[in-house]
Amino acid sequence: MVTNERPLRSDARRNRAKLLDVAERVFAEKGTSASTEEVARRAGVGIGTVFRHFPTKGDLLEAVFVARLRRLADEADRLAESADPGEAFFTFFAQMVRSAPEKNALSEALAAAGVDVTETASPIKDAFRTSVSTLLERAQRAGAVRADIGFAEVITLLVSASHGAEHSFTAPDVQSRALAVVLDGLRPRTGG
Amino acid sequence: MVTNERPLRSDARRNRAKLLDVAERVFAEKGTSASTEEVARRAGVGIGTVFRHFPTKGDLLEAVFVARLRRLADEADRLAESADPGEAFFTFFAQMVRSAPEKNALSEALAAAGVDVTETASPIKDAFRTSVSTLLERAQRAGAVRADIGFAEVITLLVSASHGAEHSFTAPDVQSRALAVVLDGLRPRTGG
Repeated sequence: MVTNERPLRSDARRNRAKLLDVAERVFAEKGTSASTEEVARRAGVGIGTVFRHFPTKGDLLEAVFVARLRRLADEADRLAESADPGEAFFTFFAQMVRSAPEKNALSEALAAAGVDVTETASPIKDAFRTSVSTLLERAQRAGAVRADIGFAEVITLLVSASHGAEHSFTAPDVQSRALAVVLDGLRPRTGG
Repeated sequence: MVTNERPLRSDARRNRAKLLDVAERVFAEKGTSASTEEVARRAGVGIGTVFRHFPTKGDLLEAVFVARLRRLADEADRLAESADPGEAFFTFFAQMVRSAPEKNALSEALAAAGVDVTETASPIKDAFRTSVSTLLERAQRAGAVRADIGFAEVITLLVSASHGAEHSFTAPDVQSRALAVVLDGLRPRTGG
């Protein structure tokens, strides 16, 4: 669990944010072999600073996971305000699929560290669900996305498409065309 | 490697086919915990008969894998002869996705047994590729499937959709609607 009993001073907050940012990149690159030492080194802080914020590697991984989900929810909220709700939805979907390899590396590192994020991530998961649902509903109201699907179908398609994207043996252009098929399938049928 | 130096007599051929059939079901149900003993028991033969045909569990698994791929290629060939090439292609695609959990169980059992099917499965993989490509091209010529994709995109989408189908936490109706999105995306755009 990430303990934050007292409010952090602003420099401590900045340190924490920077550590999360660096840690996300390190875990994405190295997966289960990433170390807290490397995170400290690349963030330019001592290992003691990392452990003050995150007593264990599991705490750090969990905080990265939560921060990532919060950033995605914020991004969905920002896109939901866009003038073109259809474009906004498809942009978000494609971004999620393209960032799948990093997401999967993080999930594997969490699993390897034996961290169960169910409890900590629950509030942000709800926020993510609300944000993505809003983005979807606006795109549907604009007639850009078929009306017969909901959040569950979108997540199933995201997980599926992300699984395809994670296989490095699939050439990027094949991945792009496969993603285009899914995106077109999300649009309403305009005829026959 | 599956050794078949001499032609098998017809009762031996029948026994072998039956063992493969039973083994496929047992591995699909039990995955890595399936045993050669259970295959023998459920096929109603002695364990010696199994070992005469398949000296190791790896040999049996490999033969099941090859037989499955050959059956799918035959099914694609059969469907390619159908009067409605579009319907035939979509039927094949949906069947492949629905049988994904069994396919994945088999792949896991192969991996757990340390079996590399690359060499043995290579000829049947080529046949499978030819059969699916023919099915795809006929559907494309009939105007039922978009023209800008090939075998690689179809397999990427199959693998992706199959990954979604393998998650038992996804409700069947959500899986069906997610699959419908992919199938619709495979159709040519009729407007917009």
